Amino acid sequence: MLPALSRVAVCGGTHGNELSGVYLVHERLKRRKKSQVMEPVAVVTVMSNPRAVQRCVRYTETDLNRCFTHAILSASEQTSYELVRSQELNSLLGPKGSAEAMDLICDLHNTTANMGLCLITYSDSDWICLHICKYLQARAQHPRTDAMEIGPQPHGLIRANIFMAMQEAVQLLLDWVRLFNSGAQFEGGSVDVYTLVKNIDYPRDPHTHTIIAAVHPDLQDRDFCLLHPGDPMFLSFSGETLRYKGKEPLYPFFINESAYYEKAVALSLARRRKVEIPAIRSSRM
Amino acid sequence: MLPALSRVAVCGGTHGNELSGVYLVHERLKRRKKSQVMEPVAVVTVMSNPRAVQRCVRYTETDLNRCFTHAILSASEQTSYELVRSQELNSLLGPKGSAEAMDLICDLHNTTANMGLCLITYSDSDWICLHICKYLQARAQHPRTDAMEIGPQPHGLIRANIFMAMQEAVQLLLDWVRLFNSGAQFEGGSVDVYTLVKNIDYPRDPHTHTIIAAVHPDLQDRDFCLLHPGDPMFLSFSGETLRYKGKEPLYPFFINESAYYEKAVALSLARRRKVEIPAIRSSRM
Repeated sequence: MLPALSRVAVCGGTHGNELSGVYLVHERLKRRKKSQVMEPVAVVTVMSNPRAVQRCVRYTETDLNRCFTHAILSASEQTSYELVRSQELNSLLGPKGSAEAMDLICDLHNTTANMGLCLITYSDSDWICLHICKYLQARAQHPRTDAMEIGPQPHGLIRANIFMAMQEAVQLLLDWVRLFNSGAQFEGGSVDVYTLVKNIDYPRDPHTHTIIAAVHPDLQDRDFCLLHPGDPMFLSFSGETLRYKGKEPLYPFFINESAYYEKAVALSLARRRKVEIPAIRSSRM
Repeated sequence: MLPALSRVAVCGGTHGNELSGVYLVHERLKRRKKSQVMEPVAVVTVMSNPRAVQRCVRYTETDLNRCFTHAILSASEQTSYELVRSQELNSLLGPKGSAEAMDLICDLHNTTANMGLCLITYSDSDWICLHICKYLQARAQHPRTDAMEIGPQPHGLIRANIFMAMQEAVQLLLDWVRLFNSGAQFEGGSVDVYTLVKNIDYPRDPHTHTIIAAVHPDLQDRDFCLLHPGDPMFLSFSGETLRYKGKEPLYPFFINESAYYEKAVALSLARRRKVEIPAIRSSRM
């Protein structure tokens, strides 16, 4: 028996140029104004970084999605827009870790990587998130795995298919919460989980730090397909193939995400394992 | 008989986040430093907007690609970076329209639209450009038609396949110039040309001006495929299909180019026609 999820937040525009979440939040806010229907669960819809959304950029001064640390949230004076905004969001949806905080936050993201519908959570023993993942895998059209990351979609534009996949996934997530709150029993089972092992940067010129190779065509768009030692990884601009030198086969993801060039990440590598999750049900609201 | 093309410019980074051209220029500049080979035609390689390249943005203050008007180029005092830079480029590659100007400029661009390899020229009686187009169509892997526009590639990242297609196309273009300058005869024939008829904006909320629909999945990625009256054009975020209301079938292109959201262009529509081009050869250098 787990407590019911009485307050859920759906956030979009944490990165202002990831437009599926931006327009999904726009749409939810508009429909709410029109219908004023009381939902059986309190769903708060939030545009996380309105200034970045307005300018259609990832962020204006600091990456908001890296601001939700206790150090930043508890600092007394903040100057940059995103640092201030992270504290506002913490007041609205938190305080983080407190009893008043949201029970579940679904933060909507896009990626240029071919990751399909991917759920990111920071614990592999969060039964709620893993049950939601299992539920989505059985129902959504292209799920792979409490951010929701959908791609491929370039930043700064919206593709109808990606928007619809996100809309469907958010609907399924909220359906799950309603079922859970109504006391329904969810059977246990196993869920595939990918755990980050390491990030790999683009090959760079040692002096200028300029990128000298692109992701290899054989690897591009093959997120979550096992990469073996010796497989092509990069193709240099002069035509040379550079291979994966690791000793262990690993699963690549976030392959060629444009926002990660500045973070020195060409792709991430993960280990896959099956996590057994128990049956759960809520103590009804 | 046409005059030889003694000076050719290859420009990249006119838009700083269109990375195929940026890295192609990097690569050309690096190779030139290493080899110092004199080419039979003087090819100038230029990074058009280094500040935008450094920040990985389309432009810093003004779209450089809209600055090459006689009014801007002849203005006495310029303040924005791109306005100043357009005058610098005009000194380097022009003056525009003068006898000292480059004989041919190939300005490299990427688009998020599925336009393949597409040559943009501002005249349909420029026999040089149309012959180059014909030459590329017969040889390059995915050509469709004196900017070179290649997609789909999201801005701010580089895909190896798109980079290689651009590299091949630039190589073929320079091969053509060398052949032409050597006095080779190029047979006449016909070339398909798409002429802009009009631009179509995204459907927007009349009050907030916010986009309320995405390009329809049936139209997305179908650049240069004939669009008929009544065909689906947009899918609203609430699920409604909006159709093409024109009376004439036209060819869509630049479908869902992210940089054109700010320019109120969801797609452009063109008429196609065959242009007959005469046989040409140069008076040798």
